Amino acid sequence: MQIPSRLIEAAVEEFAKLPGIGKKTALRLVLHLMESPEERSFNLSENLSKARRDIKHCQRCYTLSDEDLCTICENPLRDQNTICVVEGLRDVLAVENTLQYRGLYHVLGGVIAPIQRIGPEDLTIDALVRRIPAEQTKEVILALSPTMEGDTTAFYLTRKLKPFGIKITTIARGIPLGGELEYADELTLGRSIATRTIYDQQQ
Amino acid sequence: MQIPSRLIEAAVEEFAKLPGIGKKTALRLVLHLMESPEERSFNLSENLSKARRDIKHCQRCYTLSDEDLCTICENPLRDQNTICVVEGLRDVLAVENTLQYRGLYHVLGGVIAPIQRIGPEDLTIDALVRRIPAEQTKEVILALSPTMEGDTTAFYLTRKLKPFGIKITTIARGIPLGGELEYADELTLGRSIATRTIYDQQQ
Repeated sequence: MQIPSRLIEAAVEEFAKLPGIGKKTALRLVLHLMESPEERSFNLSENLSKARRDIKHCQRCYTLSDEDLCTICENPLRDQNTICVVEGLRDVLAVENTLQYRGLYHVLGGVIAPIQRIGPEDLTIDALVRRIPAEQTKEVILALSPTMEGDTTAFYLTRKLKPFGIKITTIARGIPLGGELEYADELTLGRSIATRTIYDQQQ
Repeated sequence: MQIPSRLIEAAVEEFAKLPGIGKKTALRLVLHLMESPEERSFNLSENLSKARRDIKHCQRCYTLSDEDLCTICENPLRDQNTICVVEGLRDVLAVENTLQYRGLYHVLGGVIAPIQRIGPEDLTIDALVRRIPAEQTKEVILALSPTMEGDTTAFYLTRKLKPFGIKITTIARGIPLGGELEYADELTLGRSIATRTIYDQQQ
């Protein structure tokens, strides 16, 4: 589709670089903004640039944060001796949403993925290792995606953390709540049988 | 979902105001930009603000344009005596994409919609009426959506343009190419029977 305006085309191209936004959707968004009051476009631009310019990584857990310490690390009511290791901020939000976890986090910034040339030194693993003795951590919960890369990272972390003699756990894999057995893939079902729990432990 | 960063939240809120973008998608887009190089966010902001600030309406056909006259109105090879009346730029692009039309356009900026308080005076109808004698227009093609509002607008325009004694046509309504008869709604099918064409006229 040829757009008869270079101004619109330039904006559409930038929108179309976003994940899940194709050129048609980008055009729809840009035209919507062109037909809306000017402040809509300015507010969007302003808030986005400001966020990108001022956002920091929490110096303790490396999540995206407005301040040097994120609101979770700053909160004295959180359990200071448990660290939940996740890939990114989105996982922090997902765990927070469950309202089941009151400890701290550690954001790796990705997982070990040799194909994409992401090695352990590209992640915040050293910082995590330093936190364990400094914060007298008692338990590290690995909450990584159940992919090859996630499992590799979990294995690497376990080896690094073992010398500290702390409890290392991983979130349970199994049949999702509301999921039907017959539709579960055999790997998940197999794992959920291997890691079965005593019945009255379940809620 | 509570976002622990006011900077990110402000950007997410602006993205979530876009049509078809919910809060979850907005968060995904913003986090993607936070984790991408800074220039990605700046280019998006810059191109969007620049487009919104500098975009004009073509003084002749009222489509969005970089200059006082749009590239279509400026093109001397276009048929200067035919005007295709559409609602917005997206419709111009749709008609242009067919490669079947070589005339000019007139962008109304909407359709008459009393419920949304859009009357004829909010659209560029007067400008269209002035164009007819000034440009010695021979045909006006109404390419409006087949909705109640579109039909109302077409009816209003026809009444306004009749005194000029020009040819007024409307795009054909009927069964879409590749569409199956049994799935067509009865209104469309009825209309396509009422406005049937001689067989050998069809391509």
